Amino acid sequence: MGTSLNRVEEEDYSSYTNSSDFISISLEDNNNTTKTATSTSKSSSELHPVCLPPHVTTWQKLNHRLREIFFPDDPLHIFKDQSWRRKLVLAFQYVFPILRWAPHYSLSLFRSDLIAGLTIASLAIPQGISYAKLANLQPIIGLYSSFVPPIVYSVLGSSRHIGIGPVSVASLVMGTMLDGEVSHSNKKDLYLELAFTSTLFAGLFQASLGIFRLGFIIDFLSKATLIGFMAGAAVIVSLQQLKGLLGITHFTSDMELIPVLESVFNSIKEWKWETIVMGFCFLIFLLVARFISTRKPRLFWVSAAAPLTSVILSSLLIFLLKSKLKHVSIIGHLPKGVNPTSENKLYFHGPHLQLAIKTGIITGILSLTEGIAVGRTFASLHNYQVDGNKEMIAIGFMNIVGCCFSCYVTTGNYFFKWSFSRSAVNYNAGAKTIFSNIVMAATVLVTLLFLMPLFHYTPDFVLAAIIITAVVGLVDYKAALRLWKLDKLDFVACCCSFFGVLFISVQIGLAIAVGVSVFKIILHVTRPNTVVLGNIPGTQIFRSLNHYENATRVPSFLILSIESPIFFANSLYLQERISRWVRGEENRIRENNESALKCVILDMTAVTAIDTSGIDAISELKKNMDKRSLQLALVNLVGTVMEKLHQSKTLDSFRSKGLYLTVGEAVDDLSSSWKHWP
Amino acid sequence: MGTSLNRVEEEDYSSYTNSSDFISISLEDNNNTTKTATSTSKSSSELHPVCLPPHVTTWQKLNHRLREIFFPDDPLHIFKDQSWRRKLVLAFQYVFPILRWAPHYSLSLFRSDLIAGLTIASLAIPQGISYAKLANLQPIIGLYSSFVPPIVYSVLGSSRHIGIGPVSVASLVMGTMLDGEVSHSNKKDLYLELAFTSTLFAGLFQASLGIFRLGFIIDFLSKATLIGFMAGAAVIVSLQQLKGLLGITHFTSDMELIPVLESVFNSIKEWKWETIVMGFCFLIFLLVARFISTRKPRLFWVSAAAPLTSVILSSLLIFLLKSKLKHVSIIGHLPKGVNPTSENKLYFHGPHLQLAIKTGIITGILSLTEGIAVGRTFASLHNYQVDGNKEMIAIGFMNIVGCCFSCYVTTGNYFFKWSFSRSAVNYNAGAKTIFSNIVMAATVLVTLLFLMPLFHYTPDFVLAAIIITAVVGLVDYKAALRLWKLDKLDFVACCCSFFGVLFISVQIGLAIAVGVSVFKIILHVTRPNTVVLGNIPGTQIFRSLNHYENATRVPSFLILSIESPIFFANSLYLQERISRWVRGEENRIRENNESALKCVILDMTAVTAIDTSGIDAISELKKNMDKRSLQLALVNLVGTVMEKLHQSKTLDSFRSKGLYLTVGEAVDDLSSSWKHWP
Repeated sequence: MGTSLNRVEEEDYSSYTNSSDFISISLEDNNNTTKTATSTSKSSSELHPVCLPPHVTTWQKLNHRLREIFFPDDPLHIFKDQSWRRKLVLAFQYVFPILRWAPHYSLSLFRSDLIAGLTIASLAIPQGISYAKLANLQPIIGLYSSFVPPIVYSVLGSSRHIGIGPVSVASLVMGTMLDGEVSHSNKKDLYLELAFTSTLFAGLFQASLGIFRLGFIIDFLSKATLIGFMAGAAVIVSLQQLKGLLGITHFTSDMELIPVLESVFNSIKEWKWETIVMGFCFLIFLLVARFISTRKPRLFWVSAAAPLTSVILSSLLIFLLKSKLKHVSIIGHLPKGVNPTSENKLYFHGPHLQLAIKTGIITGILSLTEGIAVGRTFASLHNYQVDGNKEMIAIGFMNIVGCCFSCYVTTGNYFFKWSFSRSAVNYNAGAKTIFSNIVMAATVLVTLLFLMPLFHYTPDFVLAAIIITAVVGLVDYKAALRLWKLDKLDFVACCCSFFGVLFISVQIGLAIAVGVSVFKIILHVTRPNTVVLGNIPGTQIFRSLNHYENATRVPSFLILSIESPIFFANSLYLQERISRWVRGEENRIRENNESALKCVILDMTAVTAIDTSGIDAISELKKNMDKRSLQLALVNLVGTVMEKLHQSKTLDSFRSKGLYLTVGEAVDDLSSSWKHWP
Repeated sequence: MGTSLNRVEEEDYSSYTNSSDFISISLEDNNNTTKTATSTSKSSSELHPVCLPPHVTTWQKLNHRLREIFFPDDPLHIFKDQSWRRKLVLAFQYVFPILRWAPHYSLSLFRSDLIAGLTIASLAIPQGISYAKLANLQPIIGLYSSFVPPIVYSVLGSSRHIGIGPVSVASLVMGTMLDGEVSHSNKKDLYLELAFTSTLFAGLFQASLGIFRLGFIIDFLSKATLIGFMAGAAVIVSLQQLKGLLGITHFTSDMELIPVLESVFNSIKEWKWETIVMGFCFLIFLLVARFISTRKPRLFWVSAAAPLTSVILSSLLIFLLKSKLKHVSIIGHLPKGVNPTSENKLYFHGPHLQLAIKTGIITGILSLTEGIAVGRTFASLHNYQVDGNKEMIAIGFMNIVGCCFSCYVTTGNYFFKWSFSRSAVNYNAGAKTIFSNIVMAATVLVTLLFLMPLFHYTPDFVLAAIIITAVVGLVDYKAALRLWKLDKLDFVACCCSFFGVLFISVQIGLAIAVGVSVFKIILHVTRPNTVVLGNIPGTQIFRSLNHYENATRVPSFLILSIESPIFFANSLYLQERISRWVRGEENRIRENNESALKCVILDMTAVTAIDTSGIDAISELKKNMDKRSLQLALVNLVGTVMEKLHQSKTLDSFRSKGLYLTVGEAVDDLSSSWKHWP
């Protein structure tokens, strides 16, 4: 055990004199493979045995793999070693996180939550109305959606700082997808039914992702593609708001850049100067408020209060000047009262069911991405854990319940920290628990019961201005610049989704974005790096010659590090590439008159997996090297790779002088063996 | 330079006394970063500097990346350092490989090629006729396709042992795809036009894959999926031959298992006992001949001659007993003469163009897979290089020329060595150059000119028997068993494509197969391994605790090796997984009363790439560890990863006591620093 390690006192390996006569590498096929290898080394340079990993049955492997896929966070670890009674309590708390904090709730917490709740309510009410219009729904649906879902979430959700309500992108997508098949103006009732049904399917989809622990699927919408997607959606949303801001009555229901712009400029005659002047005044007011808040986070309340202020001011204005401003389009009558039930409005039979399912899945996944990301951001800021799959179940149930109470798709707002989003406000407003959402819901309830007539004269242009201010934050050009600086391919993915959304459609844009992200992974695997290693003088360390300029080539050796698992997609490439390295090295040696190449060492540390094509590639390579009379040695085989090579008998041809634990040992042993048998 | 390396004389790291007071890690942003780091170490344990890789411009990176993607084999290396004249000669030889061997052609080579050519001709003629029937084409098209394409290939192709002609799977796929839209019995002319047009598009697709150096696309049809696909296709083909073997007249044109079996048993009244008896006799004869040849490779001629023998014997039999065997279906009249031109039969306008293009692409890719694989197999057996992209151009041109001379899709036969394939026979028959194909073409020419009437009485059942014998070799159950033994996921991919072809359709089967293969890669990247490393006593080597049972944990350290690049698809998983490892380690320490965890070391050797999500994950992790008052150290960052972490300023927080070249150095340095500042 306490033997000294291999020493390399000289730089030149050819001046070595020590050798090891006999190295047995234990490769038995039984369960206790790590026998002490009988290594009768004569010198100080002792070889360490390379051994097979302990045997693991297929069932154990499968079990481990499935656990890693579905339960990587070990969600049940809190139940371990607990009494039955405690387990029951924990299980209840797991299902209803409200039970975790409600018993310890205090007055001081309430004070923070009350202020936070009122603040976000002042934001939620105008935003709810605006987003509902974005989804081509009556404004009241937006308010309904800000009442029931937050209450459901407070019971089921585990994030403490999230703000629940409709969001811009999901509203937009639902609006365009449904309106593409069923006109919201001609078939109002059917449209509403489809919206609720989509919400149900969104909820079912979200909850089942969580229940079947497939939450990792949303990770495939990488941050890079989301940045592009959100920016594209924000541009579209803003442009569509020109309808309200310019006072246009006839407007396209399309969503792509070109038809929207055409629509704006074709209806130039419909532009109304009163609407334009007032609309832009309020837009500037809101943007300035937003700017102040982003500059001074302490003044968060400026941007939080601005939308409600605008709504009140503009409504007053229209009310007072109603005789002169007849042409300005206003919200009109809104029914008083809490959410009516809507379970009888769900649409399960008929030609549009497929549309409802598709819309549900897409809006479901989009709103999940927003909700989970915002939950995780705040959890990491406050150092608590959010179980993604658990959250999905909570959001899913919230939508399932919601669709029975006249609500459409809701989630937690998006994570751009300084955007005009409710969660960010909630966080800055000092929310301590999710109770702030209950306060918000109560405020919305009061509004629904008593204040609805006040919104009668609220003009559409102010809603448009509120939407634009809300989505401006989604255009995160700084993040895009960072992508460009750090990772060009990520930037390409970002651009693809941006332009895809802008010029083709939301669904296609999303599909392109996911495609590019997956392609990036595939490309990396298909064309992995192979790096020539050199010795860092005076050590047993071998590092890339390109990276470490003090690393030096070891004469007669070509040491390659393969920087990827070997799969069918790259096995041929790697074979060809290694042959080319050998050819190149032989040419270099010929030109420089160095000592001939004798051995190729493959550092397999980064080859963390291999499939049958990979196994074939290794044995092909071995044959190829044998034909060229070159020795091939494999260094530091990872457990699974070693096992597969062993099972396929490929390892047999490497048994003597072919398997080593480190590159240093391989170089020592091989070069000393040549001394003995030249 | 010549300093001694870090030594670990004791097992217990906590008994360390040496320390290094000051380590400067040079992280300048200039071009010559590998300055000697001023490391004023007091002890023998010297730290080696971690440095940034030399600066490479985006353009250089892109250039390198594109070269690796499109020119991994450096196809132009033969032109390097040659005179202009020599370059011209080489270029001609590159385009027309015939110029390479034709000048050195000798009589002894000719003798081998002659025998080989005659042997494969005896195989090519009956197979050509049979495969054409498989594609629902007149038998003569099969003979035409065995004449022109081999000649074109001998001029352009670089494989020496390939045998050119129609192949079963591509014929089958073309037959079913075209017949699904245009009936071959009702619209004979249109069907023929579509077949030639598909051949043209197959050729164009193949050639453009080669020209644009996208040949690697066919690698995505992994060997595992191809084994399943080929076996599925073979089963379907064999079942369809029951039509000929049982003498059924009304048969489905569908290709899936269920309709074919239904068709066989629904038409039980049409079964003809004479056909059945004779058909199965010849089938048994052919299978026995095949069996003999697989057992004794020297007797390859037995199986090579058997098909032609069967054709002659059966034709004679029918001719002699024609009065008694009226019901047996025969080939009938075949026109004499060489290939008529068919460029006027190409179909470029009309409703079926899309079908032709689709069929062309699918048969093109399938026949490429066969052709390239067989070429590579023989090239590796004979130690010469085959440039995949070059081969694709040759095969593509062969089909483009072919479709103008009444040929349908042709390629080199598939690689199952002991299958009844022409290339394997060619190889065993001692072919030395591709001239054997010219001999074969000449023999086919003689047949076309003079021997066509002989095939008049050839019965369909003997063609069916020949096809079955030919495709039996495609059911490679041994290879499937090997997949099961070595890689369960490969086996799943194989099964998916097998059952996909059998029960759904060829296209869907192929799509499923590719999907499963890609999913395998994605799964590996999405859920990478993280492995706890331990020290191999008496060394500076750190290896997996699971794999090496003699490896021991280092007290106060958790050393994790991350076995994958960090991408958006796994960045969250890795964050969670590492947190869980830390939690688990802390629990273990608490239970065993060991010294508290102080530091987490991440061995990043296998993290060969990182994207922006990965960068964020690392900085999140660093913050997380800081909150838990744990040190986080990164070891052996690969060049590109290091560069990106540096550019994103993430590396700044690791500057002191956070970056090391080896795990050993990290453990030494960190544990000795705790000695000084406890």
